[in-house]
This record gives sequence, structure tokens and C-alpha cells, in this order.
Amino acid sequence: MAEYYSIQWQNGVVSMLDQRLLPHEVKYVAYDDYHQVAQAIQEMVIRGAPALGAAGGYGLALAVVHCKSDDLGAQQKELENAAQVLRHARPTAVNLSWAIDRVLARVNSSNPKNCQDMKDIVLSEAHAIFEEDASMCRQISLNGLEVVPDPAYIIHHCNTGALATVAYGTAMGVIRAAHEHGRKLFVYVDETRPRLQGARLSSWELLQLGIPHAVIADGASGFIMQRRKVDLALVGCDRIAANGDTANKIGTYNLALAAHAHRVPFYVVGPTSTIDLSTSTGERIEIEERPASEVTHIGAEQVTPDDARVMNPAFDVTLAEYIEAIITEEGIARPPYEESLARMVKRAEEKRQRSRL
Amino acid sequence: MAEYYSIQWQNGVVSMLDQRLLPHEVKYVAYDDYHQVAQAIQEMVIRGAPALGAAGGYGLALAVVHCKSDDLGAQQKELENAAQVLRHARPTAVNLSWAIDRVLARVNSSNPKNCQDMKDIVLSEAHAIFEEDASMCRQISLNGLEVVPDPAYIIHHCNTGALATVAYGTAMGVIRAAHEHGRKLFVYVDETRPRLQGARLSSWELLQLGIPHAVIADGASGFIMQRRKVDLALVGCDRIAANGDTANKIGTYNLALAAHAHRVPFYVVGPTSTIDLSTSTGERIEIEERPASEVTHIGAEQVTPDDARVMNPAFDVTLAEYIEAIITEEGIARPPYEESLARMVKRAEEKRQRSRL
Repeated sequence: MAEYYSIQWQNGVVSMLDQRLLPHEVKYVAYDDYHQVAQAIQEMVIRGAPALGAAGGYGLALAVVHCKSDDLGAQQKELENAAQVLRHARPTAVNLSWAIDRVLARVNSSNPKNCQDMKDIVLSEAHAIFEEDASMCRQISLNGLEVVPDPAYIIHHCNTGALATVAYGTAMGVIRAAHEHGRKLFVYVDETRPRLQGARLSSWELLQLGIPHAVIADGASGFIMQRRKVDLALVGCDRIAANGDTANKIGTYNLALAAHAHRVPFYVVGPTSTIDLSTSTGERIEIEERPASEVTHIGAEQVTPDDARVMNPAFDVTLAEYIEAIITEEGIARPPYEESLARMVKRAEEKRQRSRL
Repeated sequence: MAEYYSIQWQNGVVSMLDQRLLPHEVKYVAYDDYHQVAQAIQEMVIRGAPALGAAGGYGLALAVVHCKSDDLGAQQKELENAAQVLRHARPTAVNLSWAIDRVLARVNSSNPKNCQDMKDIVLSEAHAIFEEDASMCRQISLNGLEVVPDPAYIIHHCNTGALATVAYGTAMGVIRAAHEHGRKLFVYVDETRPRLQGARLSSWELLQLGIPHAVIADGASGFIMQRRKVDLALVGCDRIAANGDTANKIGTYNLALAAHAHRVPFYVVGPTSTIDLSTSTGERIEIEERPASEVTHIGAEQVTPDDARVMNPAFDVTLAEYIEAIITEEGIARPPYEESLARMVKRAEEKRQRSRL
């Protein structure tokens, strides 16, 4: 089995696997400037909500570690600039903002006395985000075992594996944990147009892990459920509203509707950091429109006429009524989500506070 | 506006627009051997149920016109060989079988006396199939006007235009007729993976016709209905069972489920020749599995890992309960479909019989 990672901090640089080149080439890129990290986020060298959180933290670390001034005020200013630049790289990704806010809050509460102090504080908080995500994903995956029968036929959208996180994964973490616990699995992998994260990344990860699977066109999911056994659907999430409505990669909602029609339980899997209690319902989630070129071109191949207009929303919103449960590191939230999600967030917050005492 | 056609008979050869090269290149290919026509059908130089009917008829015409023997028995044998070869080129396409059966029946009932007689009979029946399809599509399109408001926001799957037929189109024929009747339209064009007929062909045809539209990923249809106005969905059909269950290009069923969730009326549009009363329900429709390479590659671009397994069903089955109505050249069939479809088929049959008297 190949060892690989999405993001790591190595001696003052952030190293990322360039996921745009997968599955054909495994190439790591190294950045020492937060603008490069913001651009990498924007251009999807790295993607996936939890991995973006780590990228946000390490992006801020680059800003203070490589700050040219030895004045604390200038360094603080550079940190704020970096926070703004990184935050705007992908406005829908709540994990990115969450990680940035967390580092800034830590700086505020720690009141650094000098530049070295500032560097230590920001970097240690970025590392904490990374480490917590790794252990969080393991916990999410173990919590999810409960919903996976043996044998299990699973349908999955986008990529939610180690490439989307810093280790293990969320929805694919559940699949991996079930596999490691000896359950017999078969995974239907939505290719996930327009960026084909399923075809390019999830299939690649499942091959590394030795988990049997088949890639299907997104439009084939309903037919697969109609004619074959599918026990459950597992997807990740980019933002979960207080009522359980979930923003995730475009195509998630169509999959949820197909699952609903066939009584296939549809599970959302993600860390509590993805839950945004300040957003009451999915209607209030702003959806990012990504470049038309993602639809008009696939690699070097143009698939539409020159003058064709395109709409390319990056995410959609799956209404809570179609979601059987939401699997987090704090347990499995079930309807009514207003209560269960608030409980999960509170538990996570309490744990974080305890760990700081 | 460009003039173009999917298939034509020209002085003993069958000329087809090679749709695999669109939207980038407009190239016509000419065949004088029915094996080439079967291969063209198999490789999707030509596609779309009605166009395949015409291809089946003209394929048989090639077999008798270019038969090397001047023995009627040998020519008859060649016709039967051609029927078998052409029929197996795409087993799910009922129009192909229907056209072949129709030519064979005409030969049987006409009892040709010599080789020239046989040539005349087969070719005239093939021409009749072609001409009837052209006028049928116009009638279907006019019948469909009734379901298109002004203005209308329409969502469409695959390609059902003049490229899929011999002229005008079915679902896209309705769009074209509404446009020609001055209605203000906007069409959401599902790209239709894996073969991208929406992105490659429907967008190209709509550009020729000057109809405003946007190409979307298949997985975006639910989101579009969630956040934007969509008045109706229009799709074609490859085979309609007696109860109204409809086999059509993979992804149709997912679109129907999304339309159902958003109360967007979902219309199937096609000729009565697509209705197969001998098939009671959609469960009994055999679904063709197409080559994995359609999913693993897009043009020269490989999108999956080398060892990835793929499932690639060419069609899915939309249950009748999700279909608002079925628009045919004989009128609009509504539930209960057992009755309305049988009525449409009967009308068409009576018309054909009258036209032969």
C-alpha cells in the first residue's frame, strides 16, 4: 500500500500533493508564501473541507514565519492580510474560515510578546488543527462503523478520503475503517463531474487500500439503486446548517434524491467543525460559482462548442429530510437535527476547553 | 443558421454526419456496405432512436443494392444477414429493430419477382421510414407546444434534436417549435455523461438555432431546480413499456427524480414507434452495458486510474409515476398509460394502414 498525504508542514514550508495531477502522477509541491497557498486552494491543488482547514492554519504560519519585518505590529498586520487572502480563496469552505478564526483567536488570547513568540503560537495552533483533524477523522470513521453492514454495498460521491483530510478521511474513512475491520465491501464511486474527484481521487485511494469498487457516471446512481443492491450512501460535507441541511459537492443532492426514492439510507459524514450553527437553514448558504472551464474542458479536451454558456455551481444543498444521520467525531446526529447537531457542537467545544486547562 | 443532417441516402451510399467529431468538426462519412453502417451504429457515428431507425432501413437497402449475386434467393439471404448484423449493433434501440422488421415485412408482403424488384421495394420502404420520421418529428414538436409556457425555462437531457432524428428532433423539436412560435426560452442542457451528448451536440444545435441555454453538469440539475425557475423537463426515449416506464439515456431517471422533488413536470417525447406494447413494464427492458472506456476516457484524456473498474449502463428506466405525460405524433398520452399508449399505437397503425390502401 502506498503511503501518501494531502498536506504537511516540513521545516518552514507547506508541502502538498498536487491533486490535479492524480491519478496519473504523484507530485508534491512546496510553498513558503501564503499567497501561493491561497492560490493552491483556489486552483484546487488541495481540496476537501478538513484539508482546507489545515491549509488555512499552515498558510497563516507561513505569513508569520517568513515575515520580513522584526516588528510585532508589522507581523500582526501580515497575519491579518494572510487571513483575508486565505479566507477569500474559497468562501464556501467553512473549515477554512474556521481554522483561520481559530488561529487568530489563539493569537489574541495568547498575547504574543515578540515575533518569535508569535511564530511559535501560530505554528503550534496550526499543528494542533492538523493533529486534531487526524485523530478526529479516525474517531469519525470508528463512529461510522455502526451504520455499515457486512457485507455492504456503498455508494459514495466526490472524494472524502485521506486526500480530502490530513489523514484517513471522513466518508471514505468510514469505508476504510469498515474494510480494516474485515467487512466485505463494494463501493460505487460517483465520478463527480465537473472535477471528477470520484474518478480521479476516490478510485485511486480505494485502489491503494485494496477496496473493491466501480466508477460510475453521476447520472447512473439511480439506475444502480434500481437494479442492484445498495445498502447505504456515504458523502462528506462542506457546510452543515443548524437544521441539518448540508452543502456538499455538486451532485450530492441528486444522489440524495435517488437514495430517498430507493429507501437507501443517506449518511453525511464530517467533523463538527463543518457544522455552522449560525446558519439556520441551507437556503442561507451562499454557493460558489466556479469557472466555466471546469465544464467546457476536461484536461486538454474541449467538450462544448466555443460559444456555449455554462453554469457551474460548486456545491448544492441537500435538505435535512433526505439525510438519515450525520456522523461526526462526537457521535451520530439524528433528526431532529437542531438538537442533535447543537449537542455535538457543544460536546466538541467542551472537549477543546478541557484540553486547554 | 447552418443546414445539417444526421443521415441521408445519396446515389447508392448512406451519408452520415460523424457526431463523434462534433462540436469541433462537421464531417460527413459515406458507406456502401451494411457492415460499415452496423459499425457506425455500434461506434455511435450516428445515435438517437429515430436516426437509428433510418440507419437500419438504409443499411438493409445497401445490402440488396450492392448484393453481388443476381440470384433472388442469394439476395434474400443477404438481406437476412444484414438484418441480423444491424439489429445486433445496438440491441436496446427498439427503433432499429422496428425499422428492420418493417422492411422485412414489406418484402414479404410484396413478394419481389427479381433482384431489381427487391432493390426497389427495400429502398422505397427505407425512404418511407425516413420521410415518415421527418414529418412525424414535426408533428410531435407541434403537439408538444401545448406544454411549453411563454416564457419557459426548460431542462433537457442528452440530445434529441435533428442530429438524433432525421430532421427537427423530438424533445428538442418541441423546444425548436416553441422558439419558432416566438416563445421566449432558456434551456438548461445536461451535459449527459458519459458521452456528453448534451455538451457536445445539444448545445451545438441550440447555438445553430439561436436558442439561449447553459450547459450544466448532470449532478447540478437538482440544485438548479432548487434555486432557479424551471418550468418543465423534456427528454427523449429509447423504449417505452406498455405501462409508461421509459428507457432513455443514463441519467434520465436521476433528472426525473429531481424534477419530481421540485414538482417540475417531466415530459417524455418520442414517436409511437418507440412504444413497445409487448414489454409490460420497465423491469423487463434489457439495459445495454457500454464500453468502460466511455467513462475512463474523455477524448484523449484518461480520468480514472489504470486499474479502475467501471460500470457503464447506457440507459436507465424512469418509472411511469414520475412522467407527467408522453408526447407523440398521435397526441399527448397521459396516465393511465396502459390505455393512452395503446390508443396512440393503434392510431398510428390505423394511419399506416390507411396510407397503404
